[in-house]
Amino acid sequence: MARATKTAHTPLDFMQRAIQLARRGAGFVQSNPMVGSILVNRQGKIVAESYHARFGGPHAERRILERAGRCLGGTLYVTLEPCGHTGKTPPCLDLILKSGVKKVVIGTLDPNPITHGKSVRALRRAGLTVDVGIAQADCDYLIRAFRKWITTQQPFVLAKVGMSLDGKITSAGAYHYITNQLALQRVHQLRQEMDIIMVGANTIIQDNPRLNTRLAQTRLHHPIKVILDSRLRTPPHSKALDERSIVVCLDSAPYYRKQALAKTGAEILIVPPNRQRGKMLFEQLNLSVVLAELGARGYTSILVEGGSYVFTTFINQQAIDEFYIFLAPRLFGAARLPITYALQYDVNFSHPVFEQLGDNMLIRGYVSYHKTR
Amino acid sequence: MARATKTAHTPLDFMQRAIQLARRGAGFVQSNPMVGSILVNRQGKIVAESYHARFGGPHAERRILERAGRCLGGTLYVTLEPCGHTGKTPPCLDLILKSGVKKVVIGTLDPNPITHGKSVRALRRAGLTVDVGIAQADCDYLIRAFRKWITTQQPFVLAKVGMSLDGKITSAGAYHYITNQLALQRVHQLRQEMDIIMVGANTIIQDNPRLNTRLAQTRLHHPIKVILDSRLRTPPHSKALDERSIVVCLDSAPYYRKQALAKTGAEILIVPPNRQRGKMLFEQLNLSVVLAELGARGYTSILVEGGSYVFTTFINQQAIDEFYIFLAPRLFGAARLPITYALQYDVNFSHPVFEQLGDNMLIRGYVSYHKTR
Repeated sequence: MARATKTAHTPLDFMQRAIQLARRGAGFVQSNPMVGSILVNRQGKIVAESYHARFGGPHAERRILERAGRCLGGTLYVTLEPCGHTGKTPPCLDLILKSGVKKVVIGTLDPNPITHGKSVRALRRAGLTVDVGIAQADCDYLIRAFRKWITTQQPFVLAKVGMSLDGKITSAGAYHYITNQLALQRVHQLRQEMDIIMVGANTIIQDNPRLNTRLAQTRLHHPIKVILDSRLRTPPHSKALDERSIVVCLDSAPYYRKQALAKTGAEILIVPPNRQRGKMLFEQLNLSVVLAELGARGYTSILVEGGSYVFTTFINQQAIDEFYIFLAPRLFGAARLPITYALQYDVNFSHPVFEQLGDNMLIRGYVSYHKTR
Repeated sequence: MARATKTAHTPLDFMQRAIQLARRGAGFVQSNPMVGSILVNRQGKIVAESYHARFGGPHAERRILERAGRCLGGTLYVTLEPCGHTGKTPPCLDLILKSGVKKVVIGTLDPNPITHGKSVRALRRAGLTVDVGIAQADCDYLIRAFRKWITTQQPFVLAKVGMSLDGKITSAGAYHYITNQLALQRVHQLRQEMDIIMVGANTIIQDNPRLNTRLAQTRLHHPIKVILDSRLRTPPHSKALDERSIVVCLDSAPYYRKQALAKTGAEILIVPPNRQRGKMLFEQLNLSVVLAELGARGYTSILVEGGSYVFTTFINQQAIDEFYIFLAPRLFGAARLPITYALQYDVNFSHPVFEQLGDNMLIRGYVSYHKTR
């Protein structure tokens, strides 16, 4: 493609800039959505930029309009439809109407069915020009977790796995990383964005990871840690256990283990087992209940980091929304640990995105489930 | 990247054109290498193009110089060092010296250790300017099969597999294609280039494929078919069997099966079993012997199309040089047929190349083997 020349920016350029800004709120705004906004004057110059920076703090539009003061005849770009209701903060709609901007360009409508489209109608009634749907796919992707949570009260589930080309998640040296440094950095960017990091008890027992975010930036967000552990096999001295962790188990887990783990400050969350066709799968947690419980606590997104048993359980309960698969260019053969055991569903990526990361490959996308024959 | 403007072509452009031409010989020149050549006059205009079109026919340089007549002061581009010896045809070197060209640009040197660099020295002694190594990696890739065959007398082995992201080569519908149409087309382009297509007896028994080349072009090359079949389980009525096929078996295969299969016109090639640490693996063919036998017949390249048992055998005998792995964005789980069974070696790609083919991904590259612990 030809290099962009230094001519006037297009609405798409402005919206992409607003998306960039929005992403700076990653890890700090939930259970609000990430939102970015810019103000462009009549000469087509950006006069102010802003983003929603922390939950409970001012919204992106408010921050920008307060800074810019009155901007007669300008255009406001915002990745998400502005709010028209009083929540933690007063509605942005009023501020826009008072600001003097003549046009509002919106990435995507508010996914909340109660408020969806209302602000657009109010702005138009007030005589402003409103464009909706600029860079819509990217703006939708930005709020995919919020969208699921606000419409289903369950968190969005992103499963991340690093594996060989033949789907093996451990190498001969068992706990070496299979994938490269670029892949590792992407994983920590995911942790920075997600409310919850979730692993199975086997990962805790074998690797004893901290499950924190390690990135070369000062403003770090560490997701809370959720350990799936039907029988409470997690050792109480595990590094991941603290006041910001939840251990999910069955009621049948030994009482003395519940007591020992509760002392670490971790919450013990008891859920029922999974039932299929009336048959109880005693060892398997009911993930619908797990997701509902976490959603009720205001968590909008979960990063599931495996291993095999956890991925198998999630797929068999159709509970993963999006996959991030990091592939290392290797073959390990059938003697190593696979990404999943036998599945009741085939998993298909609807519109996979491929990104080359040095000699590794990231394949990511939403997935659908198809009953195996 | 900026679009190439319509200025003078660079030597790299000329050599890439010569590589393009060379590839037109794919499937018809073996056991010679593919070679492409162009002649550029003093004004920097291409005045003739040529390629080696069929084994035993004139070489690329001869065809071009015969067509162009004398080209005083021009430059000859050729992907491979011109021959200086009389083989099936008289040496090209003499023709170049007589042609009037002042400069020769060569992609890569003759891999044959006996003639390597000799023509370059002869051209320089005669006062011509010679540049070597323009687009060398691409010119080397063009002759990778010839290079291996001329230096080891064994054919180059390219393994092709289409699979899910978790390394499964069959879907629930068993004999559906897992990968997409673009991947299938690439497979048939591979068949067009390779001397031999090789499969295991299981593939013949289960799928009964024709193993021919299906491409929308008139000049098709069909590789000869080699079936690896220790115990000669291949049914005599299989579509792949004819005078252009070889069935490889152990001496222990039943005599009546040998007779039945020989009647189809296929050659029955008997090889010893594989030995490891003195222990004979009775069912497993000794692939070194297979490759030596096929190399001795003048075949320079083999396309191995699996299944699981064949890939496992090839990897455990470190016999694959290059992999083409076509990935479909799906997960099938552990209950489906894997690309390999347990391996004695990890397989690492040295410099993997990633190509997106719609929603499929091709990962290709040379591989190295590392003993598993």
